[in-house]
Amino acid sequence: MASNIVLATEKFNVVGTRPIRHDGTEKVTGQAQYGADIHLPGMLHGRILRSPHAHARIKGIDPSRALALPGVMAVVTGADMPDHAGRVMDLGEGAMTNTRFLSNNCMATEKALYKGHAVAALAATSGHIAEAALALIDVDYEVLPAVVDVLDAMKDDAPILHERLANVTNVNIRPGGLRSEDDDGKATNVANHFFFELGDLDKGFQEADLVVEREFRTASVHQGYIEPHAATVLWNADGKMTIWCSSQGHFNVRDQTSQILGVPVSNIKVVQMEIGGGFGGKTLVYLEPVTALLAKKTGHPVKVTMNRSEVFQGTGPTSGGYMRVKMGVTKDGRITAADATLAYEAGAFPGSPVSAGSQCMLASYDIPNGRIEGYDVVLNKPKTAAYRAPGSPAAAFAVETVIDEICEKLGMDPLDFRLLNGAKEGTRRVTGPINPRIGYLETVQAARDHDHYSTKLEGPNRGRGVASGFWFNGTGPSSATASVLADGTVSLVEGSPDIGGSRTAVAMQLAEVLGIAAEDVNPQVGDTDSVGFTSMTGGSGVAFKTGWACYEAAHDIRRQMIERAAKIWDVAVDDVDYTGGVIAHKSDPELKFTFKQLAGRLNGTGGPIVGNANVNPTGAGPGFAVHIVDVEVDPETGKVDILRYTALQDVGKAIHPSYVEGQLQGGAVQGIGWALNEEYFFDDQGQMANASFLDYRMPTSLDLPMIDTVIVEVANPTHPYGVRGVGEVCIVPPMAAIANAIHNAVGVRMGKLPMSPGNILEALWDKK
Amino acid sequence: MASNIVLATEKFNVVGTRPIRHDGTEKVTGQAQYGADIHLPGMLHGRILRSPHAHARIKGIDPSRALALPGVMAVVTGADMPDHAGRVMDLGEGAMTNTRFLSNNCMATEKALYKGHAVAALAATSGHIAEAALALIDVDYEVLPAVVDVLDAMKDDAPILHERLANVTNVNIRPGGLRSEDDDGKATNVANHFFFELGDLDKGFQEADLVVEREFRTASVHQGYIEPHAATVLWNADGKMTIWCSSQGHFNVRDQTSQILGVPVSNIKVVQMEIGGGFGGKTLVYLEPVTALLAKKTGHPVKVTMNRSEVFQGTGPTSGGYMRVKMGVTKDGRITAADATLAYEAGAFPGSPVSAGSQCMLASYDIPNGRIEGYDVVLNKPKTAAYRAPGSPAAAFAVETVIDEICEKLGMDPLDFRLLNGAKEGTRRVTGPINPRIGYLETVQAARDHDHYSTKLEGPNRGRGVASGFWFNGTGPSSATASVLADGTVSLVEGSPDIGGSRTAVAMQLAEVLGIAAEDVNPQVGDTDSVGFTSMTGGSGVAFKTGWACYEAAHDIRRQMIERAAKIWDVAVDDVDYTGGVIAHKSDPELKFTFKQLAGRLNGTGGPIVGNANVNPTGAGPGFAVHIVDVEVDPETGKVDILRYTALQDVGKAIHPSYVEGQLQGGAVQGIGWALNEEYFFDDQGQMANASFLDYRMPTSLDLPMIDTVIVEVANPTHPYGVRGVGEVCIVPPMAAIANAIHNAVGVRMGKLPMSPGNILEALWDKK
Repeated sequence: MASNIVLATEKFNVVGTRPIRHDGTEKVTGQAQYGADIHLPGMLHGRILRSPHAHARIKGIDPSRALALPGVMAVVTGADMPDHAGRVMDLGEGAMTNTRFLSNNCMATEKALYKGHAVAALAATSGHIAEAALALIDVDYEVLPAVVDVLDAMKDDAPILHERLANVTNVNIRPGGLRSEDDDGKATNVANHFFFELGDLDKGFQEADLVVEREFRTASVHQGYIEPHAATVLWNADGKMTIWCSSQGHFNVRDQTSQILGVPVSNIKVVQMEIGGGFGGKTLVYLEPVTALLAKKTGHPVKVTMNRSEVFQGTGPTSGGYMRVKMGVTKDGRITAADATLAYEAGAFPGSPVSAGSQCMLASYDIPNGRIEGYDVVLNKPKTAAYRAPGSPAAAFAVETVIDEICEKLGMDPLDFRLLNGAKEGTRRVTGPINPRIGYLETVQAARDHDHYSTKLEGPNRGRGVASGFWFNGTGPSSATASVLADGTVSLVEGSPDIGGSRTAVAMQLAEVLGIAAEDVNPQVGDTDSVGFTSMTGGSGVAFKTGWACYEAAHDIRRQMIERAAKIWDVAVDDVDYTGGVIAHKSDPELKFTFKQLAGRLNGTGGPIVGNANVNPTGAGPGFAVHIVDVEVDPETGKVDILRYTALQDVGKAIHPSYVEGQLQGGAVQGIGWALNEEYFFDDQGQMANASFLDYRMPTSLDLPMIDTVIVEVANPTHPYGVRGVGEVCIVPPMAAIANAIHNAVGVRMGKLPMSPGNILEALWDKK
Repeated sequence: MASNIVLATEKFNVVGTRPIRHDGTEKVTGQAQYGADIHLPGMLHGRILRSPHAHARIKGIDPSRALALPGVMAVVTGADMPDHAGRVMDLGEGAMTNTRFLSNNCMATEKALYKGHAVAALAATSGHIAEAALALIDVDYEVLPAVVDVLDAMKDDAPILHERLANVTNVNIRPGGLRSEDDDGKATNVANHFFFELGDLDKGFQEADLVVEREFRTASVHQGYIEPHAATVLWNADGKMTIWCSSQGHFNVRDQTSQILGVPVSNIKVVQMEIGGGFGGKTLVYLEPVTALLAKKTGHPVKVTMNRSEVFQGTGPTSGGYMRVKMGVTKDGRITAADATLAYEAGAFPGSPVSAGSQCMLASYDIPNGRIEGYDVVLNKPKTAAYRAPGSPAAAFAVETVIDEICEKLGMDPLDFRLLNGAKEGTRRVTGPINPRIGYLETVQAARDHDHYSTKLEGPNRGRGVASGFWFNGTGPSSATASVLADGTVSLVEGSPDIGGSRTAVAMQLAEVLGIAAEDVNPQVGDTDSVGFTSMTGGSGVAFKTGWACYEAAHDIRRQMIERAAKIWDVAVDDVDYTGGVIAHKSDPELKFTFKQLAGRLNGTGGPIVGNANVNPTGAGPGFAVHIVDVEVDPETGKVDILRYTALQDVGKAIHPSYVEGQLQGGAVQGIGWALNEEYFFDDQGQMANASFLDYRMPTSLDLPMIDTVIVEVANPTHPYGVRGVGEVCIVPPMAAIANAIHNAVGVRMGKLPMSPGNILEALWDKK
């Protein structure tokens, strides 16, 4: 069941409809070309040798036996990577990192820092030879003690990953409101430590009638995209290289590869192939720089692909972490103070999403006195990458279950509590910003009014939970170029890798302006040399920023079509009107073209018409979600079944509601997996024990009911069509909502993810 | 030896210099990807079955034995081609044809009209299987009488190729000045018949003191490009297809395929691969529609390539033909009248370049009374295609040798004759147009002044000849999109297939505007969905039209860079100047950016900058060439050696002089081959006897001296940099110049091409 609460009033012809997706047929027929689907003449096959140890000094690498194997063409090790001392690079979305870390994550130098860390690569004439040759690379390791728990890693006697980390703190911080610790010069695994403050925390807690304080733990979980990473590189003798890969930002792949290899961006063309899922996990390079070096050494194009085990162990999951939340409320349910500490695992190199998590965790509420402290901690696990609303889901798991406990203790309806304390336009977040026009209260009210919430839940061991979530939604530079074809269609080239249907969503925004059908736009993702710079597909920003670029490009076409008609008719431009796909003289009814008619006459009347736009718009609108879930807990086994699930979300404006519903459903499902089953199992040596989809348990359709969705549309006033962005906030509420439902069902408060059968049983036994 | 006579006065920083070509390294290292270099997963290999008969009715085709061969996936015949009755399409450059003819040339239906005509195609899992399976397609032919000579084909009793041709005349005519014959309804091989007239022809001849009238014959010759045709097609189930091929116009390939298959242009994307030569011969589709049908039938991508024999017999050479020229002059050398008849072979379908040849043939001269009559004649040879200045070389061979004979008879220096009678600004051509600013007289004068012309030629059997030539030079719609990269370079996407270095020539025009180096532009040819419509690479129009598009796109960037600097400095746009690659405040010396500095700051100051332009400029400037050649004739064998060769040409403005010199040299060399050796040998059954480079004799570097060039620059006032176009007129003079030199050497006037040893010997024997 899907429904739509429209609070925006403007009516559109294309925006808000559900045309068939442009890439549908080629994807269902298997003809879409993904990352590994490129084949070049003379192409070699590369493989990565990965560390079997979670922490080890690399005393030497001897590739001679591998190189002696017929068919092996080259070996690359850390010694081949350029030196990057002190260079800092922009990863997009405000995140910064040291180039050395990014480079070392692609290929270890002095130390291997996690099991699966790349220590060498080779290229051979076939994949089988390459596979076999890996075992012939002799690496001399000195195994070091490993640490794989965030709190252990913060201890004074913890094994230290980076001796010089004390000197490279304060990377990966978002601007605004952050205070850095003084640097005491001592080696540490804490890569960053900061806090946000608002009001008077002590006074706030003094005013509280009830204070609840709880601690929480979450495990590393992976995005689980279907398509493993793959990169193919051709590096010509003139220094120009072409990279074929699927990523969430081919301009980012270009820029990161440029930084790591010290090659100008103008020498790198990245061709974005179709992408089989990303969810944030395809924003960092792993294979591309190494593959490029293999291509350079061999003089051949080289393709390197990962298998699933490499994806789990060699790419970035999201952080496991520790959270502590303390919240005070008056007896009538008004929040007076909140204090939180978060320690997030960065993996082997600095850069967990703890800053984003900190900024999201209390953003749904109007809290007069607050303090959030965050730690970014390195340890012997794969370097984390972004995962859908990075940092926010774990933080929401903590805050939203504490609020549920407060409501329970106050005897207050949890949605009423949120209506009372919810963030709204003009209130200030603990982290500083004043809220613009947002739709949180409207979304809570929609949940309050929803049939699901009022339907009585019957039966033993069943319970209902609700929780909410926040995500900023992002923006960034974006470009679009659109060419009018003689048959009245428009070929659109834009720069946003299409993970979630964005090519259709942005094409629709172009079609709306021109008064043509969505099907009459042919959208495609151009390579880095064929379209202007476009920031990555992330932050739920594509429908906002690239949609805006398409909107502007359409207006550029519209302007030229009006000029052309005026030229053909020999009238003033001001006398020509363009409405609903018809270009007409304002007073002479004889002078009229449909878009198709005029499109067919362009070449002979002055040349083709191409519209173009480049934007970096401000005004991205924050998104809020409220989820309602009914569960049944089997007290014998600890297994949790999802009985009913409703995801409500303020999307600003749903350009293509089917896609939006799909995002809401997908976010909820990934959250359910995160809540109930998914986790990296590590032994005490830092060895992942479940690096396959057989052992890493993601939910399937058989595990789930249909996820109902409610689209709330509180238009973002700073976007032409009111778009906010939809892809991320939908993964924020599920863990807390399910935890609250489990408590409602069987009376235990879960402080640890996943809420797997074993953990549930332990909690039930503890309760007894 | 190359020299440069600059009559244009404007000075440029980039235009007129000789940067290293952008595509140089990847071409010399073998990494450039040509038509056949694409490989797709699941790709099948197709082959074409070709008629062994020059003229035959196809009574039936039975593919069953071929289809039974394991690995054969599909067979396509004429029955699979859509019906096109009466549809006419634009081939670009003003040429029109009936879609049925174009379709039937790709795949015969009722009749095979020449040896090599495609009658069936098949796709198989390997090229070897496909090759073997061709012999298993059973075609039941009724062999018909063939005609392979233009004058024979015009006879009343000639075998008729197209029974309905009387009803489909007046195709492939250029607009302006043409009068069509009345249609008598009788079947004929004359596809078109027209004439141009100026003044009073009888009066003109009455005023003449000397009249010379001669007849000429030329043979079919092929462009001889290195790369055979290849096409790969993926046709998705949603109706969208992608075609990879190399052509002179991927938009033309798209449009022709669209017409032939009845598929909207928006469903066809054509990716232009690198092209290994075209010279006009890659302007028509042969393989693409058929390959598409194989792809559709099989559901797989299919690649079809030609071998050299197929290129000779299955693609378009230029016309062989018949010319008659009659010219009258006063005793002081003034032309009073000229009368010409041309009959050009169209090959099996209408559309020889006789109209263009007619319009070029007298265009170098100011002739008060003239008449030109033209016949376009079908016969049982491959359908002709364009070849460098289509129609003009054979016409010039006739006119320029008649003029040489007149000069001989008048005792007048042939260049002085041309200075006296030469076309200049304001004179009217026999075919109608008034000449704009042209540089013919300047080019003749440059030849007159050249050391070559005044150096005494010594030795027996040696002679010197001169001749001149005319070509319109073309234009058409063109588009360019250029994106500023953060490192201060510009990525340029344009739509002109690069045959002769055009990517560099157009990039230089962009660089000139922006005040950056040519090397800082990265030009590339976008596919049909990635760049606005661009008319084909032909008519020597690319440096003119696409250069102009780049010039305009650069101004679009320039404007945005000025606006951005003004925004950053918070000053008025009018206060910002952009000169020589520096954007500076007009009065505050502190406010200054180099292009690179500002390029590095774009994303953070409002977004990327992409410039765009779409043009269809008028004002293409006609081109003239004068060639001087010294030959030695071996009277024993008839072999002609080229001793010295100088090619002089008004190019308007040489954007990249090295490329221009290369064009002048290449045109001269192709003309030398055409003059001395190249010809299709047919037996009386229409069977080509020399369909390989072993037997079809093209000149090699060992046959030739260095071709000296003189670039004359009479700037075209209607182009931003004065460009005229250079690629074609250089092939017009050689045949006449060499014929004149042979006469000067051994006293025979050659009326037939090629002037091969056998033909020379016959002429010498006739003389005796």
